[in-house]
Amino acid sequence: MKPVRAIISVSNKAGIVPFAKSLHELGVEIISTGGTARLLKENNIPVKEISKLTGFPEIMEGRVKTLHPKVHGGILSKRDNPDHVKTMEELGIERIDMVVVNLYPFKETVKKGSSFEEIIENIDIGGPTMVRAAAKNFKYVAIVTDPADYDKIVEELKGTGEISLKTRFYLAKKAFNLTAHYDAVITEYLFSINEEGKRSTEPPEFRNPLTITFEKVQDLRYGENPHQRAAFYREIFNEEPCVTNAEKIHGAKELSFNNIYDIDGAFNLVLEFDPEKDGIACAIIKHANPCGMALGKTPEEAYEKALKVDPVSAFGGIIAFNANVNEEVANLIVKRFYECIIAPGYSDRALKTLKTKKNLRVLTTNGLKNLESRGENSPFDYRKVVGGMLVQDRDLITVLPEKMKVVTDREPTDKEWKDLLFAFKVVKWVKSNSVVYAKDGIAIGIGVGQTSRVDAAKCAALKAKEMGLDMEGCVLASEAFFPFRDSVDEAAKVGVKAIIQPGGSIRDNEVIEAANEHGMAMVFTGIRHFRH
Amino acid sequence: MKPVRAIISVSNKAGIVPFAKSLHELGVEIISTGGTARLLKENNIPVKEISKLTGFPEIMEGRVKTLHPKVHGGILSKRDNPDHVKTMEELGIERIDMVVVNLYPFKETVKKGSSFEEIIENIDIGGPTMVRAAAKNFKYVAIVTDPADYDKIVEELKGTGEISLKTRFYLAKKAFNLTAHYDAVITEYLFSINEEGKRSTEPPEFRNPLTITFEKVQDLRYGENPHQRAAFYREIFNEEPCVTNAEKIHGAKELSFNNIYDIDGAFNLVLEFDPEKDGIACAIIKHANPCGMALGKTPEEAYEKALKVDPVSAFGGIIAFNANVNEEVANLIVKRFYECIIAPGYSDRALKTLKTKKNLRVLTTNGLKNLESRGENSPFDYRKVVGGMLVQDRDLITVLPEKMKVVTDREPTDKEWKDLLFAFKVVKWVKSNSVVYAKDGIAIGIGVGQTSRVDAAKCAALKAKEMGLDMEGCVLASEAFFPFRDSVDEAAKVGVKAIIQPGGSIRDNEVIEAANEHGMAMVFTGIRHFRH
Repeated sequence: MKPVRAIISVSNKAGIVPFAKSLHELGVEIISTGGTARLLKENNIPVKEISKLTGFPEIMEGRVKTLHPKVHGGILSKRDNPDHVKTMEELGIERIDMVVVNLYPFKETVKKGSSFEEIIENIDIGGPTMVRAAAKNFKYVAIVTDPADYDKIVEELKGTGEISLKTRFYLAKKAFNLTAHYDAVITEYLFSINEEGKRSTEPPEFRNPLTITFEKVQDLRYGENPHQRAAFYREIFNEEPCVTNAEKIHGAKELSFNNIYDIDGAFNLVLEFDPEKDGIACAIIKHANPCGMALGKTPEEAYEKALKVDPVSAFGGIIAFNANVNEEVANLIVKRFYECIIAPGYSDRALKTLKTKKNLRVLTTNGLKNLESRGENSPFDYRKVVGGMLVQDRDLITVLPEKMKVVTDREPTDKEWKDLLFAFKVVKWVKSNSVVYAKDGIAIGIGVGQTSRVDAAKCAALKAKEMGLDMEGCVLASEAFFPFRDSVDEAAKVGVKAIIQPGGSIRDNEVIEAANEHGMAMVFTGIRHFRH
Repeated sequence: MKPVRAIISVSNKAGIVPFAKSLHELGVEIISTGGTARLLKENNIPVKEISKLTGFPEIMEGRVKTLHPKVHGGILSKRDNPDHVKTMEELGIERIDMVVVNLYPFKETVKKGSSFEEIIENIDIGGPTMVRAAAKNFKYVAIVTDPADYDKIVEELKGTGEISLKTRFYLAKKAFNLTAHYDAVITEYLFSINEEGKRSTEPPEFRNPLTITFEKVQDLRYGENPHQRAAFYREIFNEEPCVTNAEKIHGAKELSFNNIYDIDGAFNLVLEFDPEKDGIACAIIKHANPCGMALGKTPEEAYEKALKVDPVSAFGGIIAFNANVNEEVANLIVKRFYECIIAPGYSDRALKTLKTKKNLRVLTTNGLKNLESRGENSPFDYRKVVGGMLVQDRDLITVLPEKMKVVTDREPTDKEWKDLLFAFKVVKWVKSNSVVYAKDGIAIGIGVGQTSRVDAAKCAALKAKEMGLDMEGCVLASEAFFPFRDSVDEAAKVGVKAIIQPGGSIRDNEVIEAANEHGMAMVFTGIRHFRH
């Protein structure tokens, strides 16, 4: 297809002048609108105003300018259909072979905090219509939506005098990918507000259909395994401190698929703890589960406690902190091999030390702002299954102690309470079935992902013993209720003195009785934290 | 807002006649197009043809009929903006207060296997433009895209004489949700083909932006935990045998979030085995991991072998078969408590037996058609992290024995080979770090999700011993390489005679040497199967 006539109407004017100039030099007649037309004229590129083509003025501050049959007949006509050709002749419709359009900056307008009216005004109507019409008719028309394609098109035109079907199809796919994204972003925005443009106070809807959209952060070397290709995408309006929004400030290697997944788990876990109230938290993650987790008064105390639980697994792991990393802990960290570290920030000296490790990826969330608004612009968690997607509210609940219930004869001591609350927050981020043994703010045994609860308890205890950790006087947290008393009996054997769990089993009485028999304190949270 | 004039132009004509009749009776002037206009006239509803409004004919077989400033000026004008009002008066544009539009059935046209030309023709241009324009201008206009809303609107009009801002906003959100979905579906289709409409032979692209879209299967009682709301969605073009496409043929209770996730894991696992070549596979899943997995000549043999590995965990689990369920195995299954069963089919008697359990959810995939084309219409796997999404190719590879390499002095015996291939397929579906001990087509020990490989090996062996299983002469599969020789040494202690693993550690030599020392055979697959 050799283009005779092009419409150019762009919000993003990057590169448009040289592109239009080239098109003009190649003999393409240029039709244009509003600001684009002015810019091209200023640059001595001859353009025909769209109103000349349509015989209709641009009206309502540009709300309506290209929505005209002379434009859309020109775009949508089948060039080899005699009836279409006849209609064009009769109605004076001229063929339009190329459409160069990009859209009003809707998401940028939302992000910069504009007024509701301005946001709504930035819903482009004419643009997507031309984009969609030209893309539909890719058999005859080239739709150019991305300035990055300008050079390629000029090159092809100069080389062959045409834009090939293959190129037109490539451009059409890209065009629909753009309009799908554009409307998905608008939808997401509209579902987050009410009719007055204020943030909606209704719980987010599980809408039908559901369309979710992302921008690419980067292609990844590979996925969970080397034979799987992969890429990492970001949500549009999420601004929480998290792995996606974190900045990589050091590390020669790129983050891998598994790194990102593990950093997410690690950072979620430490964010359960307020550095001021709870203490500084350090988590070490391997294969999506913590192999070390502790609280300390300083980062180095938290790290050392977390590490000693399972230094073998920690090799090549991910470290997360809920507070700034100082020089002391950086000095300890560089003594061992870790893949990545994430924290709200780093002292200059700490960063200098960490940078001595070429391949250690250092991520900062640049503080913890927007932590309270977690979920506001990103309320859902997704789990893929073959053929479909499970969608759920994120598990953002942390049970407060005042909502918990002591169910045993004995109340937990203050020290036990502290460890119980700690352990229940940790177990929330361990893959089910999970149990966590804790003592003095250290997760001394982490039972991961077993198909039975008692096995999770046994495996973790076995490990703790192997590591020579003193379990006497520790507490136990389970993310879900105990179906039988067996886990309590096992716990007693290794020295557990208090247990925290959701409760809710039909055998709760049996389980409570077991705890009483062993002189344990037991707390029911009423809230379960399965995580698979 | 009291509507004076409505445009009605619908592909799906369900309910449109009574709705239009009501609008007419309420004094709303009706503008209409093509087939809709004919239908309304046949039903004695006065309509004005759109060409009367625009003064422009419907052209190009309907490709262009509503794309006109008299339509879009009428929809998009701000009623309280004096300039807009003046423009309308000058140009003879009449306000349009309601737009009733639904779109050409694009996805239905694709699904019924229509020609490429017909599919492209079913990309609606005029419809989405009116929908989007009216939705943008919800401050003044009502956009009705769903026949399910007709009654509600008539009711509101009859009650108050108006359509409230709240309703208009609800309709606008729904409208953009529709156009986003529509274009996401078109995009997905276009990215699956080439410029001639043939299935693309290129690997699927990780496009930027990425927009993915789903239809709701059902709302769920709750998510992974009771405090999380949830819903289940399906992909648009996936037709594989899988949990999403399976039919529930019995079971009073609805499937839960965790059920669906576990059924997915269970069915993926049994599909690794060809019932003809490999034998009948039975998997029992709990918390996303298998707690029992075996092959048999009959379903009952496979089931009994799978169950005996861990009958405690199996309680309340999910069962999957790769072949039809017969009466014999149904009789065994109903003796115990399971949540769900999935299989390609059931004999009449088996189904009758299973139906005696009121709450057992019975799912059939109605055979295994399209199994070979897995991934064609659904190439990606998604993993959510806070603020973003990890996207990767699905792990659909099964390594063939001829691609594997025996690295030890001793070759596996035929019996060992059989168990090795079995075990490596099983371990692929166990959460990492994972090891599987197998013997005689039974996964006698399944080590799940540990942060260190040797712990996975130890935990599984501990469990097998507790269950009184004879491990002497068994094989071991690891989904990733052994970083150290320790796992091999542990394996030897419990009677492992052959090992299968990807290989690729810097300490492979040390690991191979360990295997040789113990007189084991060891096979490298070259392919890893992390799964987190």
